[in-house]
Amino acid sequence: MAALGAQAKVFTEEHRLTYYECDRTGRATLSTLINIAILGSQDQSDDLGLTTDFVQQHGVGWVVTQYSINVTRMPHLDEVVTIAVRGSAYNPYFAFREFWIRDGAGNELAYITSIWVTMSQTTRRIVKIDPVLVAPYASEATKRIPRLPRPISFETTPTTISKPYQVRFFDIDPNRHVNNAHYFDWLLDTLPAEFLLTHDLKHVDVRYENEVKYGHTVIAEVNILPTDESQLVTTSHRIRLGDEKCCEVTIQWETI
Amino acid sequence: MAALGAQAKVFTEEHRLTYYECDRTGRATLSTLINIAILGSQDQSDDLGLTTDFVQQHGVGWVVTQYSINVTRMPHLDEVVTIAVRGSAYNPYFAFREFWIRDGAGNELAYITSIWVTMSQTTRRIVKIDPVLVAPYASEATKRIPRLPRPISFETTPTTISKPYQVRFFDIDPNRHVNNAHYFDWLLDTLPAEFLLTHDLKHVDVRYENEVKYGHTVIAEVNILPTDESQLVTTSHRIRLGDEKCCEVTIQWETI
Repeated sequence: MAALGAQAKVFTEEHRLTYYECDRTGRATLSTLINIAILGSQDQSDDLGLTTDFVQQHGVGWVVTQYSINVTRMPHLDEVVTIAVRGSAYNPYFAFREFWIRDGAGNELAYITSIWVTMSQTTRRIVKIDPVLVAPYASEATKRIPRLPRPISFETTPTTISKPYQVRFFDIDPNRHVNNAHYFDWLLDTLPAEFLLTHDLKHVDVRYENEVKYGHTVIAEVNILPTDESQLVTTSHRIRLGDEKCCEVTIQWETI
Repeated sequence: MAALGAQAKVFTEEHRLTYYECDRTGRATLSTLINIAILGSQDQSDDLGLTTDFVQQHGVGWVVTQYSINVTRMPHLDEVVTIAVRGSAYNPYFAFREFWIRDGAGNELAYITSIWVTMSQTTRRIVKIDPVLVAPYASEATKRIPRLPRPISFETTPTTISKPYQVRFFDIDPNRHVNNAHYFDWLLDTLPAEFLLTHDLKHVDVRYENEVKYGHTVIAEVNILPTDESQLVTTSHRIRLGDEKCCEVTIQWETI
């Protein structure tokens, strides 16, 4: 049996990392990594006639519920990377999409898996995936979609760091939703600069639970978990709106 | 006599506007417009050997003090624009740089003039421009640099709208300074969404006075000025850090 999604169409494009997509160390930010991955998937969708308009005509919109992001090396300033994406597989309710970011020599810099659902525009509830919305990707119809790792359940402690973030007008993208890559800027900004400057991000597990909206003030929280290994650190994050959990995230880091 | 800077080298490059560089109406944001203009000037500088390292080896950094931005039409989502830039002229203390953003047919979408100074890395004071830092641009040495319009002096009124913004880790770019295009996201976000959705930005005058730094919480303030003309609206903006003025901005808008 072939690997899941082996027959799905792969779309690729190049992208050069600009200075405004990188942090002060010259590494691409996590939000940039997700932004360019999604750019690739939107371009594939447009290319196959699965435009946002077409999807909306079917009364739904695609919503991501989970990411699992593996980073071998963050792309750096001025590097030209290749984004590859495929809509690998789907079952009645969940679609599984994979992304690869590679350097000029074809080495993998990042590999991202993700789970998507279609949400009704009228009821805002998850609805069955209409096969016409995935067939052009040559997505594999399957019973079982891979389960992505669940982030650590966040627990407030006396050392939890938290910061408020008000959702801004420019956090909303042309799809009329808060660009959820911006969550990563909030999540990581809660960490001390000293931490961000001395650690490389290696792995991220994200689970989105509730949408945030323009004007909301959310609270981003982080725990830097104790570790036995001197080279590896895990951070546990949550974004909440009042008592409502918006997303939970676990990140693994390597000390530089 | 030729127009000022007519002999200066012009550098051009193309840029496609991605979804994460556009607002919910599909127009490029003002911060994107400045980001891509500066991208063009950095690429020209690198191309001519005037890299950030080279400039720093001379003990200084370039700092923008004013922009005057004329917008015929904001670029839109997925549009490929051409950025053109030249270091037009300089006198002992000020450099004058121009930018053009054009559509695929060569029509002008935006024209930006700007004034730059070199600041000592040790004293943080403005120093005389070292001619080796501008000669490769074929910049015209002149006595008189054009004066850019001064923004309206901001005055707090009972209807002033203000919002606090905390400077984030990811607001700092690889040049180790707060990317001052981010000021525009703060400045415009203070306006009601209803205003932003019903007005096209036509002209912006910006004057930077004091640098903001990571961790600072600045206050962005705006007055929507009364007008006799139904189609034109002027807004007056300020960013301050406590009592210290960081920048002042005037924007002219057309109702859609």
